Amino acid sequence: MLDRVLGSNPIEGEIARPVRLIAAMRYSMLGGGKRLRPFLAIETARLFGHEDEGALRVGAAIECLHGYSLVHDDLPAMDDDDLRRGRPTLHRAFDEATAILAGDALQTLAFDLLADPRTDADPLVRAELVLGLARASGLGGMAGGQMFDLQAETESLDETAIRRLQAMKTGALIRFSCEAGAILGRASTEDRARIRRFGEIIGLAFQLADDILDETATPEALGKATGKDSSRGKGTLVGLYGVARVRAMLDAQVVEAEALLAPFGERAATLIESARFVADREM
Amino acid sequence: MLDRVLGSNPIEGEIARPVRLIAAMRYSMLGGGKRLRPFLAIETARLFGHEDEGALRVGAAIECLHGYSLVHDDLPAMDDDDLRRGRPTLHRAFDEATAILAGDALQTLAFDLLADPRTDADPLVRAELVLGLARASGLGGMAGGQMFDLQAETESLDETAIRRLQAMKTGALIRFSCEAGAILGRASTEDRARIRRFGEIIGLAFQLADDILDETATPEALGKATGKDSSRGKGTLVGLYGVARVRAMLDAQVVEAEALLAPFGERAATLIESARFVADREM
Repeated sequence: MLDRVLGSNPIEGEIARPVRLIAAMRYSMLGGGKRLRPFLAIETARLFGHEDEGALRVGAAIECLHGYSLVHDDLPAMDDDDLRRGRPTLHRAFDEATAILAGDALQTLAFDLLADPRTDADPLVRAELVLGLARASGLGGMAGGQMFDLQAETESLDETAIRRLQAMKTGALIRFSCEAGAILGRASTEDRARIRRFGEIIGLAFQLADDILDETATPEALGKATGKDSSRGKGTLVGLYGVARVRAMLDAQVVEAEALLAPFGERAATLIESARFVADREM
Repeated sequence: MLDRVLGSNPIEGEIARPVRLIAAMRYSMLGGGKRLRPFLAIETARLFGHEDEGALRVGAAIECLHGYSLVHDDLPAMDDDDLRRGRPTLHRAFDEATAILAGDALQTLAFDLLADPRTDADPLVRAELVLGLARASGLGGMAGGQMFDLQAETESLDETAIRRLQAMKTGALIRFSCEAGAILGRASTEDRARIRRFGEIIGLAFQLADDILDETATPEALGKATGKDSSRGKGTLVGLYGVARVRAMLDAQVVEAEALLAPFGERAATLIESARFVADREM
């Protein structure tokens, strides 16, 4: 689906295809990655009996938004990274202007995909998906979190501030990935709240695992630079409490995630496994 | 409205306000500008009897998208401009990372505003607005046009390529500004097509006037650098045909715009005046 939406884009009649821009978008999006967010969206939709091309499109939209954030975060003016998923970052492989534009166009494409009638016949579902994604990525979500992250290089953060930063920067989009599946699947208000909470826990677990990996993994295993947060003095919970205690927190998260999905029984087996995967991942 | 949406943003409960990011967004959005695009959206909606806070929100959304594009186009890796609306550009007044993030968050905010139920009670209208804005700003619109514009620094363009670039880079969003008003106003298919064409002409006239100003105006009058396109060898129709002939083309556009709106009679007087304003503007 990602390959398809990045190949045959909705460009109207007489208008030319900006070939280099599309190539840059494809480079950033089709070079691997865990695809955790689309997986969560698709699996959550399936939990509510919703399984169609629309779920794939929602997954692609969320991955495009995630991809845009990586491209911009890697820029020289931001984290200045050379390596991403084991390959040169986009501004290294192309150039900085193209990377800025490709990120911009990926964000736009995410909203384009969600608002398109092919994603869901019900316009209310489409409008809710758009609004949910906008909230997860804007001032109160990813962009706001990245701003705090930049400021964290010169300020020292306590646990509350670290948790808040992480909930915004990575947590909001992971939570929305789960919620999007619930929206597509017409989940009840109660189930939707439960899934939101599950998504929140997955987001937190993801970040804790990330912080542990940043401390313990090699750049080769991770496909990107490691040890950056601690060397820059950025606060993480690992920095505050050490690996062992954070590992224990992670295990508690997984237990809570399992309990949240227990009411769905066997149908939730894959999602529960994914919580364990997120906590124990080595890349 | 712009002031309001940039002041009290939809940030959920426990999440902190990224103060510096909001300040940067406000700096870029509340420092003047012609507000042509919101004007077109609001006036077109009014033409179809639609006059409410929703039209103001749509205008604010389009202006945020326009503002994001200016912030990113001004970046060192792009056009590297120091002056915008007579003040330092955002990355000069703040820093480059903040400018990238503020542009990103402004794009998100545009979609947030459109998808929010306060913009229109009908989710179909909201979804159509989102999709229209995404098409105007993505690969086949603004972002694609900016890519061609970057490439135009090293390639020489013929009239067809120049017109195509301009239709994408500035035309698509101006056309959508008019169309958005027609969507809000529940215009008939025929009226909507007519308004689309009117928007296309305004977009073209705007660009032709811009090219003339780039050639003839002073930086003081314009509030930004001038003569940049010709000095960089970027193709414009003024470069190909000279000011006098382009001025004649502009007059022809205004005549066509007037003819298109004639069926609406007196009610369209303000929109017709705006076509003349766009063509004759001196800033």
